[in-house]
Amino acid sequence: MGNIKVGIIGGSGYTGSELLRLLLQHPEVEVTVVTSRKQVGKFIHKTHPNLRGVTNLKFVSTENLSETDVLFLGLPHGTITSRIEEYTSMTNLLIDLSSDFRLRNPQDYVQYYRHNHERPDLLNKFVYGMPELYREKIKNSNLIAVPGCTATGAIIPLKPILDIFNVNQVVIDSKVGSSAAGAKSGAGTHHPERQGVVRSFKPTGHRHIAEMQQELNLNGAISMNFSPHAVELVRGIQSTIHVFMEDEYDEKTVWQTYLQAYKHEPFIRLVREQSGGYRFPDPKVVIGTNLCDIGFEKDSATGRLVIMSAIDNLVKGAAGQAVQCMNIALGFEETTGINQVGFHPI
Amino acid sequence: MGNIKVGIIGGSGYTGSELLRLLLQHPEVEVTVVTSRKQVGKFIHKTHPNLRGVTNLKFVSTENLSETDVLFLGLPHGTITSRIEEYTSMTNLLIDLSSDFRLRNPQDYVQYYRHNHERPDLLNKFVYGMPELYREKIKNSNLIAVPGCTATGAIIPLKPILDIFNVNQVVIDSKVGSSAAGAKSGAGTHHPERQGVVRSFKPTGHRHIAEMQQELNLNGAISMNFSPHAVELVRGIQSTIHVFMEDEYDEKTVWQTYLQAYKHEPFIRLVREQSGGYRFPDPKVVIGTNLCDIGFEKDSATGRLVIMSAIDNLVKGAAGQAVQCMNIALGFEETTGINQVGFHPI
Amino acid sequence: MGNIKVGIIGGSGYTGSELLRLLLQHPEVEVTVVTSRKQVGKFIHKTHPNLRGVTNLKFVSTENLSETDVLFLGLPHGTITSRIEEYTSMTNLLIDLSSDFRLRNPQDYVQYYRHNHERPDLLNKFVYGMPELYREKIKNSNLIAVPGCTATGAIIPLKPILDIFNVNQVVIDSKVGSSAAGAKSGAGTHHPERQGVVRSFKPTGHRHIAEMQQELNLNGAISMNFSPHAVELVRGIQSTIHVFMEDEYDEKTVWQTYLQAYKHEPFIRLVREQSGGYRFPDPKVVIGTNLCDIGFEKDSATGRLVIMSAIDNLVKGAAGQAVQCMNIALGFEETTGINQVGFHPI
Amino acid sequence: MGNIKVGIIGGSGYTGSELLRLLLQHPEVEVTVVTSRKQVGKFIHKTHPNLRGVTNLKFVSTENLSETDVLFLGLPHGTITSRIEEYTSMTNLLIDLSSDFRLRNPQDYVQYYRHNHERPDLLNKFVYGMPELYREKIKNSNLIAVPGCTATGAIIPLKPILDIFNVNQVVIDSKVGSSAAGAKSGAGTHHPERQGVVRSFKPTGHRHIAEMQQELNLNGAISMNFSPHAVELVRGIQSTIHVFMEDEYDEKTVWQTYLQAYKHEPFIRLVREQSGGYRFPDPKVVIGTNLCDIGFEKDSATGRLVIMSAIDNLVKGAAGQAVQCMNIALGFEETTGINQVGFHPI
Repeated sequence: MGNIKVGIIGGSGYTGSELLRLLLQHPEVEVTVVTSRKQVGKFIHKTHPNLRGVTNLKFVSTENLSETDVLFLGLPHGTITSRIEEYTSMTNLLIDLSSDFRLRNPQDYVQYYRHNHERPDLLNKFVYGMPELYREKIKNSNLIAVPGCTATGAIIPLKPILDIFNVNQVVIDSKVGSSAAGAKSGAGTHHPERQGVVRSFKPTGHRHIAEMQQELNLNGAISMNFSPHAVELVRGIQSTIHVFMEDEYDEKTVWQTYLQAYKHEPFIRLVREQSGGYRFPDPKVVIGTNLCDIGFEKDSATGRLVIMSAIDNLVKGAAGQAVQCMNIALGFEETTGINQVGFHPI
Repeated sequence: MGNIKVGIIGGSGYTGSELLRLLLQHPEVEVTVVTSRKQVGKFIHKTHPNLRGVTNLKFVSTENLSETDVLFLGLPHGTITSRIEEYTSMTNLLIDLSSDFRLRNPQDYVQYYRHNHERPDLLNKFVYGMPELYREKIKNSNLIAVPGCTATGAIIPLKPILDIFNVNQVVIDSKVGSSAAGAKSGAGTHHPERQGVVRSFKPTGHRHIAEMQQELNLNGAISMNFSPHAVELVRGIQSTIHVFMEDEYDEKTVWQTYLQAYKHEPFIRLVREQSGGYRFPDPKVVIGTNLCDIGFEKDSATGRLVIMSAIDNLVKGAAGQAVQCMNIALGFEETTGINQVGFHPI
Repeated sequence: MGNIKVGIIGGSGYTGSELLRLLLQHPEVEVTVVTSRKQVGKFIHKTHPNLRGVTNLKFVSTENLSETDVLFLGLPHGTITSRIEEYTSMTNLLIDLSSDFRLRNPQDYVQYYRHNHERPDLLNKFVYGMPELYREKIKNSNLIAVPGCTATGAIIPLKPILDIFNVNQVVIDSKVGSSAAGAKSGAGTHHPERQGVVRSFKPTGHRHIAEMQQELNLNGAISMNFSPHAVELVRGIQSTIHVFMEDEYDEKTVWQTYLQAYKHEPFIRLVREQSGGYRFPDPKVVIGTNLCDIGFEKDSATGRLVIMSAIDNLVKGAAGQAVQCMNIALGFEETTGINQVGFHPI
Repeated sequence: MGNIKVGIIGGSGYTGSELLRLLLQHPEVEVTVVTSRKQVGKFIHKTHPNLRGVTNLKFVSTENLSETDVLFLGLPHGTITSRIEEYTSMTNLLIDLSSDFRLRNPQDYVQYYRHNHERPDLLNKFVYGMPELYREKIKNSNLIAVPGCTATGAIIPLKPILDIFNVNQVVIDSKVGSSAAGAKSGAGTHHPERQGVVRSFKPTGHRHIAEMQQELNLNGAISMNFSPHAVELVRGIQSTIHVFMEDEYDEKTVWQTYLQAYKHEPFIRLVREQSGGYRFPDPKVVIGTNLCDIGFEKDSATGRLVIMSAIDNLVKGAAGQAVQCMNIALGFEETTGINQVGFHPI
């Protein structure tokens, strides 16, 4: 346990749960305060049974929030902006896992989230917390907005390609585990209804497109298409990204593009095997890790580039990426506390 | 039990299993002979435990094949052509569930199956057994090649659209249950390795593209792209089909196109709900049925038409469609023996 | 569709769903009215997507209940007794799937359901709707209480053994699918929390013990122990029943006991194979059927008799058994409408 | 990476995989050699895709085995005894994860494994590697036999009870994930056949009873009964243990018994909540950890004590317990390298 004090506001949900798993084991920090509206006064391990014996902390109310060096927000989207001054006043480094400060253009909130943003003045003060794109900015930031989970699985594999190639169309077809929908139960996540589905829950217009457009398609020249599907997983997102280019290209150049971009990245792996069941990225292989696996294949018939990515939505897609940002911002070794190895099998 | 004699060659696999389930309950036919190389002499219900108490038939060897009115072939691809005369001589109606006679162009076997076809003279004698496209031809045929499972889930929803609209690009992203890989065990289907995967097992070049090209893209003008994924299902295929058109269109025209094409089809359902967990096709809803559910949504940002389909790969994707063809060819009511209702929940 | 009019009160839950699946296909009856408090005025297939294209019925409120020949109650436990006169006045045959009239001793309601029974005078007027035990009584009854799902999977395999052998102790360890908990969502059935559990949710004192005691252990001489577990299934109950006897016995006598008791039963199968993956009962094999599979093995080391049973909780454990009772009571062929064959694989 | 050299013989299976996951992250050891008969010369991460980027080791053949400080054997049962001298000559500490040296009585190998043991002289030289029972012996041992997975989940919760109470009968009903059957594929583990089963694969006579008898029932006075079931899990074993006592007892004494026995144990947790979905042990909560969770409830009707335990079969049931033994034997902090926190949800 380290001597950097960290707090979590909204610790009873799944991003809160995963932050706790990672931070309670992190050698440089101490979790000093965790809030929850509904679980005030109860042991954290009643809500998160994996933490029994790991911590004796109890949830407190936001009113009892103490000052910390780092404050993580695991709150629902849309609940943060109105209290942002209160939160920033309590900490040196604010890391928000919601979508409230991910987008730089206030109009995007109108279009994708159906509300006016209350504090457009702050949007440019937050860094989009994706180290592969913004490591340098994160180093000097005290306001970080952690990317959305499906956005992470799309932007990381697409960014180097779009930087090099002349792309005119992208189709992102994602398969998503149930934990991505959060800890709140409802008719659609009732086990008999959710088990074994391949459910196209938002074939068009998903909010994470806003992040993908912002980070990848600044001039709007590319037709960006995204369709997520709920599948029989608790954790994990697999995205198959179908890319259509203007010009001829070969696989070797794609390979070199990825190597050039990501060979020093601690959490990116290029996956391309000739044989076996794990030739391409699969969420099964990265469950519990902060990895983003990337693979690809060129369609010799149509020229399409098929890119595949896999992440654990709660780690690289949320809490792990948040901790990675904290490590960078505080000058720790970037992999500290998030270099867990995956499982085979799980 | 009816008085039409039917036989099944290759009854120990999963298409054989499903043919037995359907045919043993079919009021117009009697299953008189079922072969298996490896299970000769054993009760069928030892292999297919669901049939215990339903039939006391035993597997026989092909040598003991008796004449039948209808003969279904549930054999592996590539094993039929050399013995086709033998099979046709034993029956009036041959219904082959393999790929050996699905393609009309012998060159497609070279390209997609990596072998020369031994009997190219027969390729035009088989009807492609998809009633929605070839009902009239099936009526007069005695040689039927049942379509591939993922081809079925793509061709049925795409055909009416491609007939009406000016399409330039199609991306078919399919999610497939493990039974589609057949009854033979192996490293990739070992439960600890297969459970919970989202595995892109053939991102490009899958053989079923040949059927899709043949039935949908005769002039080759459309960029047809197909990527299947193994997901955590035993039964079922969901396909999300991303369609890009040359011209403007509206959803109402798409709806009318489907109504026009399929309103009298007994096994096609259009699925478009405003709310709830089942707004679009989901294999969970069609497990055990011969249905093909179709839904769609227009992407207002890019113009993309997102079509979704769901089938049970062993029923509409194999045995059910085969029995549907038999019903048509023999003049039975088309839905006889295959009008089972699905389950909620399952 | 037949000319016996049937109604369902409480048709939006899972027993209602399954009654609809069976009754809408039943050749002797017509479903004329289905009620739901919350879904009044909506198409039934909005709630039960498997019924799209099968029926255009809408849910009505109980106030609009019309007279029927048979009335099924798919309501929650504890909600029926106060309105029982109303229901019985509307029909000739009332079949209740709740627990409100399963127990004959009013004290059992106090002990197991924590309330006084309002109409103890009616308890002996209901027949416990398990045809294997009470077929003759069912024939003449117009009030039938359908057994609980785990009680069904325990009583059917135990009854013949307890009739013949001198048993002193029984341990019933059941593994139960999520649909047994009903259609109402909640924290415990939220998919991320329920998926992949082996959850001992009621290690002692489960209410269905009352039915087991009533039907099996009238004199109270046997130590009856029951522990159900939630496992990763939507449908199905497997029970392993560990039986300890006073006297020596051999497997052959057990086999003969079962044959004697059940050889003419249309929905009981004895399952004992020497090899293969389906040597003993498994819910996977009976999904969608009204079967109760029974198997057993003697423990040569301790003398314990291990009995295993498998049912589909929504069919033989609820709606299928209810329809079986209706068939008997109305003089139809007992298997009418409920003789669906299971699946391999599913 | 530490400076203790460790080797793994048989590193391509699942216990080998899990040993690698743990040992490659263990701060005190360095994995220097890993053998596999079939994968010689290939990168380990081709077989275990989770290890891509974690190690560049390749599998070598046993012939190329170099000397190590610790040698783990991840080989199949029955393959070790004949080569035991070779293995012991190459290392200071041999830790065998097979069953070849778990039993002290050679006759048990005849009874449970159907062969004579070739080296009965060695049986008493191995320590049964369960730290909760034999920590002191493990400290001085250089030959350790790691317990079986279901035996671990039964012996740990039963031992304190049997030490204190006068028990006459025990029924252990276990639910087991597919990884417990090993990495070799076959008909019974083919995904379509194994998914969603509740399969009683060995209702009586399972080999792990021998370990339970040896460690728990030395005088043979107790009727020990064990029935394992394959359920829909990759990892995890839940055991419900039904215990019948001679004398009266109360829950408080059970609680104190466990506290007395295990309050200082780093990997044992007592789980008994009044509410919520995780009131009792569930494998879902301990996946990826070396924990053994224990809970219990007294049946007020029959006096039965219901004990529930949950472990990850590959960690506490195999590789984790092996590393725990190594830590003890080498004088490291006992939790080193195996104190990973579980997940919520997973």
